[in-house]
Amino acid sequence: MSDPAAATPATPAVPAAAATGPAPIAARRRAREVPEVMKKLVALCKNRGFVFQSSEIYGGLKSAYDYGPLGCELKKNIMDEWWRDMVTMRENVVGIDASIIMHPEVWRASGHAAGFADPLVDCKVSQERFRADKAPRPNPGDALPITAPDKGVAKDWADKIQRQFGVELERDGNVLNGLKAISATEFGFFPKGASAPAKTFPYRGYVSPTFGSPFLTDEKQFNLMFRTTLGAVDPMQEVSTDLAALTAEADLAAAIKAKYGKAAQDGVLAKALAEFATTSDRAKLLRAVIEHLTSPSLAYLRPETAQAMFVQFKNVMDSSGMKPPFGIAQRGKSFRNEVVVEHFIFRSCEFEQMEMEFFCEPGTQKEWMSYWKKAREDWWFRYANYTEDFKFRQHAKDEMAFYADDCYDVEYLYPWGWGELEGIASRTDYDLTQHENRSGQTLQYVDQEKADPKTGKKPWKYKPFVIEPAAGATRAVLVYLLDAYHEEDRRTAAGELETRTVLKLHPRLAPIKCAVLPLVKKDGMPEKAREILAALLKAGINAKYDEKNSIGKRYAKHDEIGTPWCLTVDGQTLVDGTVTIRDRDTTIQERIPAAEAVARVKARLEL
Amino acid sequence: MSDPAAATPATPAVPAAAATGPAPIAARRRAREVPEVMKKLVALCKNRGFVFQSSEIYGGLKSAYDYGPLGCELKKNIMDEWWRDMVTMRENVVGIDASIIMHPEVWRASGHAAGFADPLVDCKVSQERFRADKAPRPNPGDALPITAPDKGVAKDWADKIQRQFGVELERDGNVLNGLKAISATEFGFFPKGASAPAKTFPYRGYVSPTFGSPFLTDEKQFNLMFRTTLGAVDPMQEVSTDLAALTAEADLAAAIKAKYGKAAQDGVLAKALAEFATTSDRAKLLRAVIEHLTSPSLAYLRPETAQAMFVQFKNVMDSSGMKPPFGIAQRGKSFRNEVVVEHFIFRSCEFEQMEMEFFCEPGTQKEWMSYWKKAREDWWFRYANYTEDFKFRQHAKDEMAFYADDCYDVEYLYPWGWGELEGIASRTDYDLTQHENRSGQTLQYVDQEKADPKTGKKPWKYKPFVIEPAAGATRAVLVYLLDAYHEEDRRTAAGELETRTVLKLHPRLAPIKCAVLPLVKKDGMPEKAREILAALLKAGINAKYDEKNSIGKRYAKHDEIGTPWCLTVDGQTLVDGTVTIRDRDTTIQERIPAAEAVARVKARLEL
Repeated sequence: MSDPAAATPATPAVPAAAATGPAPIAARRRAREVPEVMKKLVALCKNRGFVFQSSEIYGGLKSAYDYGPLGCELKKNIMDEWWRDMVTMRENVVGIDASIIMHPEVWRASGHAAGFADPLVDCKVSQERFRADKAPRPNPGDALPITAPDKGVAKDWADKIQRQFGVELERDGNVLNGLKAISATEFGFFPKGASAPAKTFPYRGYVSPTFGSPFLTDEKQFNLMFRTTLGAVDPMQEVSTDLAALTAEADLAAAIKAKYGKAAQDGVLAKALAEFATTSDRAKLLRAVIEHLTSPSLAYLRPETAQAMFVQFKNVMDSSGMKPPFGIAQRGKSFRNEVVVEHFIFRSCEFEQMEMEFFCEPGTQKEWMSYWKKAREDWWFRYANYTEDFKFRQHAKDEMAFYADDCYDVEYLYPWGWGELEGIASRTDYDLTQHENRSGQTLQYVDQEKADPKTGKKPWKYKPFVIEPAAGATRAVLVYLLDAYHEEDRRTAAGELETRTVLKLHPRLAPIKCAVLPLVKKDGMPEKAREILAALLKAGINAKYDEKNSIGKRYAKHDEIGTPWCLTVDGQTLVDGTVTIRDRDTTIQERIPAAEAVARVKARLEL
Repeated sequence: MSDPAAATPATPAVPAAAATGPAPIAARRRAREVPEVMKKLVALCKNRGFVFQSSEIYGGLKSAYDYGPLGCELKKNIMDEWWRDMVTMRENVVGIDASIIMHPEVWRASGHAAGFADPLVDCKVSQERFRADKAPRPNPGDALPITAPDKGVAKDWADKIQRQFGVELERDGNVLNGLKAISATEFGFFPKGASAPAKTFPYRGYVSPTFGSPFLTDEKQFNLMFRTTLGAVDPMQEVSTDLAALTAEADLAAAIKAKYGKAAQDGVLAKALAEFATTSDRAKLLRAVIEHLTSPSLAYLRPETAQAMFVQFKNVMDSSGMKPPFGIAQRGKSFRNEVVVEHFIFRSCEFEQMEMEFFCEPGTQKEWMSYWKKAREDWWFRYANYTEDFKFRQHAKDEMAFYADDCYDVEYLYPWGWGELEGIASRTDYDLTQHENRSGQTLQYVDQEKADPKTGKKPWKYKPFVIEPAAGATRAVLVYLLDAYHEEDRRTAAGELETRTVLKLHPRLAPIKCAVLPLVKKDGMPEKAREILAALLKAGINAKYDEKNSIGKRYAKHDEIGTPWCLTVDGQTLVDGTVTIRDRDTTIQERIPAAEAVARVKARLEL
């Protein structure tokens, strides 16, 4: 999938013959070659209005980002290109737009309500919070050095450990030594030279990922789904009323049994009452009462858009007359209470997806997987300058969900390494089966023309197999920004190096397609420029008029925000009706009749 | 705003001269003239794939709807037209796309967290739940008859009232008599002929709206905002642990003071402790503990998109170089835990908005209000068949928020009467002031050119005044569906009446612009049809190929889903390259060269 030959810039150059050329480029750096590029990109995004931190004036929320005037256009363009390619242009794919809050049973059927959880642990020394299942796992016999950020912190931690755990670790710079894993469940403090531990502690089998500390809290199960409450009344009112009454009684278990009668005989209450009989754990019992009281109104924010396509499979098939092979596509927001949010918009709690479920005849899933891999590769490549930064990675057997029979990730080479951008999974009929079982509704296709392979008789009733290309729209924004980011040095007439930042976004993705600039704010130039603007807008081209600052500053600004073309109205325009058209990538300017500008820009925007 | 002359159908007719005419229309009914039109529209929406109930296979959620293959295109088209008109085409408006979960302080500043609440009451007889502030208020001395749905229910209710309240009401058909309001706080049972009450009850000052019952529960304050929890760990775990410990102590108040120390000395805990000292209300005290423990991680789903424009006002101004007068627009989902969801997609808990905040110089808000009223009227009219169904209603002084200095609703004549579709409010500098005070950030514009009217000195630093046109996108879908819905009767050659249902949607809103139909599935017609389809798609026109069923059935289907034009490929196409183009509204077919089809459709799609 690496094809350096395809790495031409998104905008073809204007023929040099007819053009006034700029100074040659002395040096050119793409994102990957720029030190601290993420820092620069985040600053550009804020300063130019691509991406702001959510609720910034209130100190910001880490969970989400807001898209500014340019960012929302970029995101919209990416998502519209996806919709156009996946839905509009295809006879066998239709779209839906489902609600974010779905019936809670949907998530029980899909497995999200039960399984979509991370075991979370805190380090008692550094307060680092992390996912237990992703932590490093030193083996029995391994040393467990704790590595602090610097000497000063290492000293503080050594003191803290002595106070809290009663052992004096040996400090070597910023590293604390003396701990060793003994068994799968025990680690110990070994004073220098000692072969037996001076003290032992329970070992969880892993250490904190950043600092290597084995001093950890218990694991807390944590559901990644955001919970909310549907319905008219605050459930905490009922919870507090009931708990007030229950906890006023001397015998809590008896009070619960009396109050909830039948409901206390099975489900969460019965289980908790049985446990309470042996553990006397009041907290756990009260937690069960809260669960019992709040579950009827509990709802979740969807953690993915995909499930709606399964849940509405029959409605879509019945109303649209579609039959397999066909797809249902959706784009929109999803929410995950991520433990770690990282890398700007790469991982946030609120994000956007572009997902499609393609329903096909059982046995044909391999060919459709090939088909969609190719289709999605074509799509990602279409808007990229550097296709070699994308690759497919097939999942190992033990990496896939148990029901999947194949899975690929489309990965991108981010500044911090390869990471996921899209997943294309062969999900068999798992999802339809789950929803069929849970809802009691038949979710199958009846093929009147074909015989059931098992019985040899028509019709063939089957649950289609599913290929799911599921892309991150928010990640697509980041990837195409990184792909587009360039710095170029040129030597000025005076011999000085001048650097320009330019976003070489594909013209179809660029927030503004064309800027219309009067050279000066007088002599009828603004009027002429606005005439051209109106013609561009009428042709459906997102163009902007811009008269602020010098022409050089305006070019620099439009390079930085990725505007592929600038049309400049100058003195000559008023004489002969020509304007200059400047190409963002080459910076070459060409003089053309103003009347041709619309057709020229339009032709370049076609795929 | 009523102009019957403007009520021409959205699609102009093909000149009759060149056309093959259909039978004349015997009768024609628009939505308002169709009995039970909502029932019919809801059925059409489901059967044709416009709107499905959310999670229908699980019994459905009342709070939301899913948009099917056609509905999501219709909604997208409406929202894209709004964006085009409000953002793309304007020099002085930019867009944003902010997160749904914002910082909770945003909603404290805006007043939503405190005031965005409905007092809710249940009727103890009928179980009806309603908003106290909207209930009928009989005066002292008025009789309070309870009107049941039928005689049988009236009997049951009489029994229930006798059992629960010990009074025997007199039944007259489905009405129960004998109750009368005595004072503002008391009502009584007056046996027939008695002038003094046999028994009295506390009166809330209002009765249940549907049945007139004064037997009511206490009011429950209910916040319309959906709550959720940000952050890594389920807060109910902490709540149950703390309550288990606290309620095990004999002296609850002392235990709370000891456990929370300083935190118990002010805020919600201090207030509850003070109350508890006189009321001994354990439930209220425990509720305060729950509030205290959960509030740090509490977050809300936005109940409107508007606040993000105030919160990001400065970032947008700084990054885009905008200065007043300018606007920030946003479209997207909002969430309100509505007590009453009603009229299909008219009022649901999850819905979509199209809002714009227009920031202008203080003192200019009146002219901008006029400007935006006209702009919004133009927009709504542009896509409507019946402009007389839209009107502006100015809010009375006591209907407006205290800070607003003018407000208009754009109302539509729904089948159940006039109702809101958009609000255009003159909000002064209230919102910016609130966020400035709460965040401590300066949210003002510094006009270097102008002198402050108070001091007479430059620059003028001011918080802009705001005009807010806030439209319901979900409601726009319903309104344009109702506006488009028609039934037409025609007499067939055999003299029988035949009815067709046709959605006369504006072509720019129609989900499918053009259907391409091979007359039969052979003789090269499908191939030719697909050629034309490809040309339409290349031109950016959302066209669909359709070969299922007879040509008559296909026309009927495309009438019902609002496709403005059908291009039919027949035997003659293969001979002379012509196709027929059929107009949805007139049903007239015209024969044109296939090569002209794209240009013809494209021209009709231009505004």
